[in-house]
Amino acid sequence: MYRIDLNCDVGEGFGIYGFGQDEEILHLVTSANIACGFHAGDPDQMMRTVNQCLKNDVSIGAHPGYPDLQGFGRRYMNLSYNEIKNAILYQVGALMGIVKAYGGRVEHVKPHGALYNSAVNNMEIAAAVIDAVACLDGPALVALAGSKMIQLAREKGLPVIQEGFADRTYRPDGTLIDRKAERSVITNPVEAAEQVVMMVKEKRIICFSGEEIPVHVDTVCIHGDNPYSLDILKEIRASLYKNDVLLLKPASEF
Amino acid sequence: MYRIDLNCDVGEGFGIYGFGQDEEILHLVTSANIACGFHAGDPDQMMRTVNQCLKNDVSIGAHPGYPDLQGFGRRYMNLSYNEIKNAILYQVGALMGIVKAYGGRVEHVKPHGALYNSAVNNMEIAAAVIDAVACLDGPALVALAGSKMIQLAREKGLPVIQEGFADRTYRPDGTLIDRKAERSVITNPVEAAEQVVMMVKEKRIICFSGEEIPVHVDTVCIHGDNPYSLDILKEIRASLYKNDVLLLKPASEF
Amino acid sequence: MYRIDLNCDVGEGFGIYGFGQDEEILHLVTSANIACGFHAGDPDQMMRTVNQCLKNDVSIGAHPGYPDLQGFGRRYMNLSYNEIKNAILYQVGALMGIVKAYGGRVEHVKPHGALYNSAVNNMEIAAAVIDAVACLDGPALVALAGSKMIQLAREKGLPVIQEGFADRTYRPDGTLIDRKAERSVITNPVEAAEQVVMMVKEKRIICFSGEEIPVHVDTVCIHGDNPYSLDILKEIRASLYKNDVLLLKPASEF
Amino acid sequence: MYRIDLNCDVGEGFGIYGFGQDEEILHLVTSANIACGFHAGDPDQMMRTVNQCLKNDVSIGAHPGYPDLQGFGRRYMNLSYNEIKNAILYQVGALMGIVKAYGGRVEHVKPHGALYNSAVNNMEIAAAVIDAVACLDGPALVALAGSKMIQLAREKGLPVIQEGFADRTYRPDGTLIDRKAERSVITNPVEAAEQVVMMVKEKRIICFSGEEIPVHVDTVCIHGDNPYSLDILKEIRASLYKNDVLLLKPASEF
Repeated sequence: MYRIDLNCDVGEGFGIYGFGQDEEILHLVTSANIACGFHAGDPDQMMRTVNQCLKNDVSIGAHPGYPDLQGFGRRYMNLSYNEIKNAILYQVGALMGIVKAYGGRVEHVKPHGALYNSAVNNMEIAAAVIDAVACLDGPALVALAGSKMIQLAREKGLPVIQEGFADRTYRPDGTLIDRKAERSVITNPVEAAEQVVMMVKEKRIICFSGEEIPVHVDTVCIHGDNPYSLDILKEIRASLYKNDVLLLKPASEF
Repeated sequence: MYRIDLNCDVGEGFGIYGFGQDEEILHLVTSANIACGFHAGDPDQMMRTVNQCLKNDVSIGAHPGYPDLQGFGRRYMNLSYNEIKNAILYQVGALMGIVKAYGGRVEHVKPHGALYNSAVNNMEIAAAVIDAVACLDGPALVALAGSKMIQLAREKGLPVIQEGFADRTYRPDGTLIDRKAERSVITNPVEAAEQVVMMVKEKRIICFSGEEIPVHVDTVCIHGDNPYSLDILKEIRASLYKNDVLLLKPASEF
Repeated sequence: MYRIDLNCDVGEGFGIYGFGQDEEILHLVTSANIACGFHAGDPDQMMRTVNQCLKNDVSIGAHPGYPDLQGFGRRYMNLSYNEIKNAILYQVGALMGIVKAYGGRVEHVKPHGALYNSAVNNMEIAAAVIDAVACLDGPALVALAGSKMIQLAREKGLPVIQEGFADRTYRPDGTLIDRKAERSVITNPVEAAEQVVMMVKEKRIICFSGEEIPVHVDTVCIHGDNPYSLDILKEIRASLYKNDVLLLKPASEF
Repeated sequence: MYRIDLNCDVGEGFGIYGFGQDEEILHLVTSANIACGFHAGDPDQMMRTVNQCLKNDVSIGAHPGYPDLQGFGRRYMNLSYNEIKNAILYQVGALMGIVKAYGGRVEHVKPHGALYNSAVNNMEIAAAVIDAVACLDGPALVALAGSKMIQLAREKGLPVIQEGFADRTYRPDGTLIDRKAERSVITNPVEAAEQVVMMVKEKRIICFSGEEIPVHVDTVCIHGDNPYSLDILKEIRASLYKNDVLLLKPASEF
């Protein structure tokens, strides 16, 4: 029997600004990554999103990013090991404060945007993220399946959740094609669903180049800020059901 | 036998900017209120301050404020009950994140500046602060001794620490003379020390007007951003010693 | 022959966040109030909005607000005369910088949200806004028609543009019913258009209470953040056309 | 007869936070680079600094930086050409707004920190800065003497002011040794003064490696955030006087 978790970044509005389609998305996923106020989100937005997650029985995770609201955390910033570690402790702690008041637990931490990508490629940044999450004594780390960051987290004894992407194309080294590149984003629900089923059941991905690579994923990310996100999510759920794959909150591995 | 706690606001730098004389102050007080990033402070500053508190065995508290770095949280902002409650959960949670990594526990919460003053005078704001702290299941609330806010916190079952001020003059209703008013700040160490000893041993204050009012204080605040703060602190400590008053971390009351 | 200007607040997105329906709105109004980065807007958003205004031959104005992005400048903040004056010089200057590069001129300044309302009711705040705009030697001030702020600006020799509201209900003193109150916002396009035509041609408003008050307006504001804004705007334009009222960029008065 | 301008970064406080020794520095330099609110500075700070410059007859320049107050603009951020261009237009425009109210003219623009260094090494960033300043139709560009950025600015017809550093050591390619490296900062006033006199009169620098390189400088920067800044400045002024070098506001070149 196969199982998989579906995750989405949510709570990425700020103040008066909405973002994405959280309401609908949270009916369809099993875990959520909630923005923590640095790249997006604010205390009130976080409260609303935590409550939506609780209502829909969706697993709550923190989604910390670079301190760059204008750039939505997508611009690389040259932060030191300590600056990154403390920024993550601060943001995840802040979400824990909200969660203490309204219910739930912070089950996982997934870095956002440029921080996610930097941590995949730069082991000093990866270590800062890992060491922060490990201090918090509870949440697992969500990181790119098969990456050196996953390996480092395991060496440091942190439970990990390996992540694949439904709507992005891959390089042969298992990393993602840059978001700005042509055909980096999969918009066809059927293609996305096929990629997910292949990841989960056959444990492989067909890269952009046509090459096949092996992969093990515990969770699959669907981006929520596209017009076609809901269609993709529904198609994935239908395909998983047809393929006897259980949809379950993430099981972290040591 | 008498006992008292001495507290000071610390960690109120930001980025490259220092503020106050934390290093010296933290040798002389028994508890500290650490800025949490909204009116002052940032994750790295918070880390450094938490470590200084641990080194000096000073009780760690959170010092949340309005989201107004430029105004140092001293400008009144018209926030709703929910906005205040969530802003406090966020800030105290963030400090808890830092504390989880570097050691210690968040023992108390003391609102900063305009938020402190608003909560003394406006029971909706007081309730927002109290309800937030109560959710966090642990820290006590520091508030103005004898205020309606103390009464409300007690009614809601939150442990409280009643605060007096060493270096500020009082109105007959037990509130402080506005910081901008003439003679609102006591700069003479001997006067400040006398006010503290009188508060602690005789449980009374002589107001600005000459009137005497009864008071019960668990902790005494000394502001750390004055050139004479250290002299005041040293004089207070000497006077307390001479008067057989023990200097102890705060004992919260229910 | 009658004439009127139609204005709308635009450029109120931030970073990745959009807001309102600027593209469509800017085909229908004759002048625009562009957010300047404090309550909304950022340098890139400002650049895009300035270019849209130029393309549509819409008069460019600055729309400075309180430094409160999370609260969208709608929360009252207790700023001093100098803080307000400098905040306006800064924001309008910033827009002038963008305008120098991409074309156009900053023709008017209209304070936003809580700052607009404060300046109507508090003459120290009004003076801070007026003195700032007067320094900039060029733009006219947009303020509530018939208000004491208009009178003060005239006394200080600043050209003024008197503003009425198409989609808001009035008190008998000529100020607006609070946005949060029931029936404060007019959503019916026909009602809004009738209010505008009556303001322009008959120089009167029927208040919420039924009372009639006299008014002189140079410009009429339509809020752009409602689903029915475009319908209201189209209905107003049709009514003005039917009533032989010319739609022209604002003529400021001394 | 030789001439030189001495410049310093000023107005780099924020809100309640002071920074540097502007008051004393502004008695000793001939031109000032005023922070514009992104890496440091705020509207009130800018007002105070502009007034200090006017009082001391110091040439006013804008000192725009990356939008990173926490990192004081010293952390590299991956901004696009347009984001940099607009950020500069915004910041310099904002200073122009303040200057319109209180007096003076923005005579030059000198990028700050990581932005200054990026523009020296990356011609796309240099072009963004240059194109922004050129749009503003007035201020000259201050950039590293002999750099490709100077060359590019000239090709684009922008007046330039070539800058040398009194208190920093050089690489043989004319760029600065990284601030974090050992012996990158000169703290001995006599050494600093000798470097300045050699730059101005002999048009050469002795690099860190001992190698000599030719240089032409119109202005010399002294950093104001060191305890020894004032001593260095006084020593430089004395040496220039002894060497018959006139201290004059910068003369830009085409």
